[in-house]
Amino acid sequence: MGDADTLFRLTTLNTEYAACIDADRLEDWPALFVEQCIYKITTADNRRRGYAAGIVYADSRAMLQDRVAALREANIYERQSYRHIVGMPALRPGDTITAETPFLVVRTMRDGRMDLFAAGVYLDRVQPDTDGTLRFAERIVVCDSSRFDTLLAIPL
Amino acid sequence: MGDADTLFRLTTLNTEYAACIDADRLEDWPALFVEQCIYKITTADNRRRGYAAGIVYADSRAMLQDRVAALREANIYERQSYRHIVGMPALRPGDTITAETPFLVVRTMRDGRMDLFAAGVYLDRVQPDTDGTLRFAERIVVCDSSRFDTLLAIPL
Amino acid sequence: MGDADTLFRLTTLNTEYAACIDADRLEDWPALFVEQCIYKITTADNRRRGYAAGIVYADSRAMLQDRVAALREANIYERQSYRHIVGMPALRPGDTITAETPFLVVRTMRDGRMDLFAAGVYLDRVQPDTDGTLRFAERIVVCDSSRFDTLLAIPL
Repeated sequence: MGDADTLFRLTTLNTEYAACIDADRLEDWPALFVEQCIYKITTADNRRRGYAAGIVYADSRAMLQDRVAALREANIYERQSYRHIVGMPALRPGDTITAETPFLVVRTMRDGRMDLFAAGVYLDRVQPDTDGTLRFAERIVVCDSSRFDTLLAIPL
Repeated sequence: MGDADTLFRLTTLNTEYAACIDADRLEDWPALFVEQCIYKITTADNRRRGYAAGIVYADSRAMLQDRVAALREANIYERQSYRHIVGMPALRPGDTITAETPFLVVRTMRDGRMDLFAAGVYLDRVQPDTDGTLRFAERIVVCDSSRFDTLLAIPL
Repeated sequence: MGDADTLFRLTTLNTEYAACIDADRLEDWPALFVEQCIYKITTADNRRRGYAAGIVYADSRAMLQDRVAALREANIYERQSYRHIVGMPALRPGDTITAETPFLVVRTMRDGRMDLFAAGVYLDRVQPDTDGTLRFAERIVVCDSSRFDTLLAIPL
């Protein structure tokens, strides 16, 4: 599998990831991870200081499913929507497929106001499934800003 | 034609589309559509409610050319400029090539102020011309926000 | 070398470029240019009026290295961070590889505030090194806005 092919498949995974969140198909989102995955949201500042703890942490697909169920109960998606703009992944050499991918999220409130909600970089480790489909073994979402909205329970 | 090749050609179409608008080469914009095309701007809210009507609607390339002529007369491009940042398309399976592609538009006013003008998703149906060039048979621009600037006559 | 391959390699160069700046690996940034390169930051307005002068101008890799050294001394990266979102390149036909690529930069201040720092287009001429790696022979950064922050010494 050449680099161009890996990039193509990783891009496909990234667009599907963003589409699940932005089109409010949250229930499809956990399936993009392997079962024993790591999903973490942290800040650039925390990372620089070497803090391992994140703002959000999940270490299995089941935990991601629980999070989606909680979000549905909280009805957060009724009040706002998101739009991810995801850059091209920078592949990092190694035995496993790892990549760094910049992202930006624009939030739109029900009354029409838009704002820059988050910007940062995804640090990913992905692995092909038995059928060749790439899934996230690890996605660490590193936000540039340390100032957080109370609604950060929403996947980034 | 494999998926990677389709993605490459669709990306080329998308970058050309954005470049026409952002570099003020509006006259080149209609040629990216087939003659009997659909071009529509609507909102996520309208779509959710099942409203077919859009804010802007054209069902032929000739209508798009008319729109460009009207914009030139109104001199709108003298007063502001646009920058599209277009994500990678998510290809949808099927006989025809359909795709969903996130976008973001930054507007810059003559005095230098910049703002987030629009964010949303393109719902596209594209078809290859006799020479293999892809063109839009349908582009539905779904804006996340329902609040519109009076200047929305400008293509998104 | 087909267009799809060129696009892949150019995208790789662009993601590396953005990653150097955004991850504060500024020292790696000059190596993405050939030794006798042109690097210029200008505005759309200046370009329209035919002004050759830019806000920033360098005509060798050594000048870029000097700039990085100056930025380190000024400690600017302690106070803010950047996130480039770079679109797909539009390849322009010709003997040399030239491309136009839209970009957006979000700035995050130490206190967490984010803003749209810059939007515009990269006008690039790239050339393959002896080992096939693409490098910038020329990168002209054309900013949509003519209003500049005093901190524009930072690479865009």
